[in-house]
Amino acid sequence: MAKSNNDVVDKIVSLAKRRGFVFQSSEIYGGLNGCWDYGPLGVELLRNIKEEWWKAMTYRDDIEGLDAAILMHPRVWEASGHVENFTDPMIDCKQCKSRFRLDTLTEMISDKNKEKAIKELDINLFNQEGSIDDKFTSILENQNLAPKLLELINCPQCGNKGTFTQPRKFNLMFKTFLGPVEDESNVIYLRPETAQGIYVNFLNVANSSRQKLPFGIAQIGKAFRNEINTKNFLFRTREFEQMEMQYFVKPGTDKKYFDEWKEIRIEWYKSLGMTPSKLRFHDHPKDKLAHYAKEATDIEYEFPFGWGEIEGIHNRTDYDLSRHQEYSGKSQLYFDDETKEKYIPYIIETSAGASRSFMAFLIDAYYEEEVNGELRSVLRFHPKLAPIKAAIFPLVNKDGMPEVALKIESQLRPHLKIFYDDKGAIGRRYRRMDEAGTPFCITVDTQTLQDETVTVRDRDSMNQVRVSISNLLNYLLEKLR
Amino acid sequence: MAKSNNDVVDKIVSLAKRRGFVFQSSEIYGGLNGCWDYGPLGVELLRNIKEEWWKAMTYRDDIEGLDAAILMHPRVWEASGHVENFTDPMIDCKQCKSRFRLDTLTEMISDKNKEKAIKELDINLFNQEGSIDDKFTSILENQNLAPKLLELINCPQCGNKGTFTQPRKFNLMFKTFLGPVEDESNVIYLRPETAQGIYVNFLNVANSSRQKLPFGIAQIGKAFRNEINTKNFLFRTREFEQMEMQYFVKPGTDKKYFDEWKEIRIEWYKSLGMTPSKLRFHDHPKDKLAHYAKEATDIEYEFPFGWGEIEGIHNRTDYDLSRHQEYSGKSQLYFDDETKEKYIPYIIETSAGASRSFMAFLIDAYYEEEVNGELRSVLRFHPKLAPIKAAIFPLVNKDGMPEVALKIESQLRPHLKIFYDDKGAIGRRYRRMDEAGTPFCITVDTQTLQDETVTVRDRDSMNQVRVSISNLLNYLLEKLR
Repeated sequence: MAKSNNDVVDKIVSLAKRRGFVFQSSEIYGGLNGCWDYGPLGVELLRNIKEEWWKAMTYRDDIEGLDAAILMHPRVWEASGHVENFTDPMIDCKQCKSRFRLDTLTEMISDKNKEKAIKELDINLFNQEGSIDDKFTSILENQNLAPKLLELINCPQCGNKGTFTQPRKFNLMFKTFLGPVEDESNVIYLRPETAQGIYVNFLNVANSSRQKLPFGIAQIGKAFRNEINTKNFLFRTREFEQMEMQYFVKPGTDKKYFDEWKEIRIEWYKSLGMTPSKLRFHDHPKDKLAHYAKEATDIEYEFPFGWGEIEGIHNRTDYDLSRHQEYSGKSQLYFDDETKEKYIPYIIETSAGASRSFMAFLIDAYYEEEVNGELRSVLRFHPKLAPIKAAIFPLVNKDGMPEVALKIESQLRPHLKIFYDDKGAIGRRYRRMDEAGTPFCITVDTQTLQDETVTVRDRDSMNQVRVSISNLLNYLLEKLR
Repeated sequence: MAKSNNDVVDKIVSLAKRRGFVFQSSEIYGGLNGCWDYGPLGVELLRNIKEEWWKAMTYRDDIEGLDAAILMHPRVWEASGHVENFTDPMIDCKQCKSRFRLDTLTEMISDKNKEKAIKELDINLFNQEGSIDDKFTSILENQNLAPKLLELINCPQCGNKGTFTQPRKFNLMFKTFLGPVEDESNVIYLRPETAQGIYVNFLNVANSSRQKLPFGIAQIGKAFRNEINTKNFLFRTREFEQMEMQYFVKPGTDKKYFDEWKEIRIEWYKSLGMTPSKLRFHDHPKDKLAHYAKEATDIEYEFPFGWGEIEGIHNRTDYDLSRHQEYSGKSQLYFDDETKEKYIPYIIETSAGASRSFMAFLIDAYYEEEVNGELRSVLRFHPKLAPIKAAIFPLVNKDGMPEVALKIESQLRPHLKIFYDDKGAIGRRYRRMDEAGTPFCITVDTQTLQDETVTVRDRDSMNQVRVSISNLLNYLLEKLR
């Protein structure tokens, strides 16, 4: 990882705090690891991303919305496989009490040390093809060999050798208790994904909306994972928000819709200004598919720390509804009016991270450039995503200019998120809005008092045009569409 | 409680499920008590309520938005007093294992039986003034007398006498564990209110937004309470959504802003069509104020089951910020530029329930009326709140009408939530939209094919006007504003 790339993330984390995009959660108490709060600018950016997603997904005649509860019946997570399978292998250093996810530990050990340990292990089995990394991971996945390998490794935290516990499974669902008795029979979980809320409501939605296949159900909501190692700012957090759409289709048509949704979804990011060359598909190889998936691809964004998933598209077959039918005892069969058949639909899932998209849009928008010998930091958000749509400045805070500026403010405010600023030099006010990603700055100047026009300055080109006050709202709404 | 009133709630719960406003959470698994899912129409109504609140509260220059995490540092809840005080007294029947909140138990016992028990107790102390209910409650609040009184009471569930356990305190916060070790040192809580997320971010927001007092911070988000007895549909649930705004003011100006916000908030419900005669303030008497409050009032709505709080407005003084300063060791002092003083601001809180508002708007909109000898059920939502803004019907599903109707649909859909329906008699289609609360139904008929006009039928008056297709979007947007 190049130093300059880490610099970018550091700069953005710092800007995010300073300008009110993202704060560390419970910061005055030292923070809560893996949780973040969205500040005044952040909450607007996040709301705009979610709003655009909601419109794109539900302003169509084949998709219905839903907002299911975070707390669900515990049998849901038995049916989904999460109680059994949603685990990470985890390991402790007995010496320094550091705790690692096994794959994270692997990353932290240098290739040289890995090679050395494998050699010391002295087994022929692993003279096969593949990188050192692959070999090392294969040994760790082997129940008999893993303990021996771990004896040969130094803890990356305290440096001691042979101090690791055995790897053990840790379920990543947060658990709590429903009602006052804290025993196993009252355990419920915070949902680790929003998808199951859609599956258990499939027939409720189909019946109440009278939708026929193919149709989808879209939902935005929080999910929780008790991650052992959180990392990379908003990328891996314990509390996060998802934007998921589950598309129910007739078996046999699933491949077609899987391919269609891949294209629709990657286009969505591009349509909101994300750099196309920083977006790609990462198809999951057949032998690495999740237990429920027939086909899967990630939409990845090239973060400063490397390519990372911002959305997953999965052909989940009839796995989920079949399992819920089995575990609930309630038929999940769909009656096909046309063919008079009954069957369990296949599901194509598009699962986007709202928090990860937020981070990708924020990083993608960040530019530094030299303007007249000074450094300008600018967030080039798509106007639809920009937290503040327009700023209004009286050039000087006298001569009747503030009065006109305030009048314009009150005209625009019911329609747009507006910022009024009468403090400091005009250049500094522009810079502050550049850093907030505000696409338009409106200045009331001497000429305004004569001809009722204002200057509208474009954030990206820094060009200014004069617009009459009476036409200003329409001018802005047109640009923001 | 009159029978007809229970009927109304039953009807609405049934309509809510049938039409996709609200489903029982995890219904196919028998439901999860106190949790509900919002279906296709419900999620739109809820989103519209939240959107109107957000605009009313944050599209002003003195209020900033925030979206803080649900999981917070556990010290937050020590500082706030929730760990110590957020408890309900609770009681079990040893015979039938039923569990009651003490106040709920009180409600379930008839006045006659209460009177009888008090007489049997034979204490002069309670020959004082007051209702039987008040006396009964006073005795239960007395640690020495409560056990004796409980000996004389029959369990309302199994009918046995003297089978109650002693009342004990039960903390209503859901607890969970951060990280893989389930011990006391890793306990965290699901927030029982969103307010604390605002308080701990007070200085972060003030500094990043450069706001000066008085200013507010607004937030919409979920909160969780492990209620022992849930009741009345969405009124008392374990998972719910709040819309809270905390207004930070200079001490001494708090009374003024408390009174101002009372008026602003009750007007908000009225401006969105809630029946004024069903709204009132309920001021908390001084001796019943919460430990943090100097003054408090509820905005109540007259539900079919009686008056119930939908929003609380509180003068919380400097209690919260002082406590966070004490517990975090981080100064929460605000520096007043004008007077050069440093002080901890007072807080005026407006805390609305999104879920409760949803229920109030839903019930308030519900009407039954006879039209041409038939019963019409109609939801008279304010157009801004209506889940679907307009429906489009081809009068008959032939003669070129569907083509025109579909063209209109595609013109309107990018701007509005639209429903297309070509099935069944036109009267039935109108009735279905009445029941969904859709304010406008657009019908393409024979005349449309001649003069490019459609009929627009108003949900409430059932009047129809002809509007030209080219002017249709503007016509609707105007009506929806």
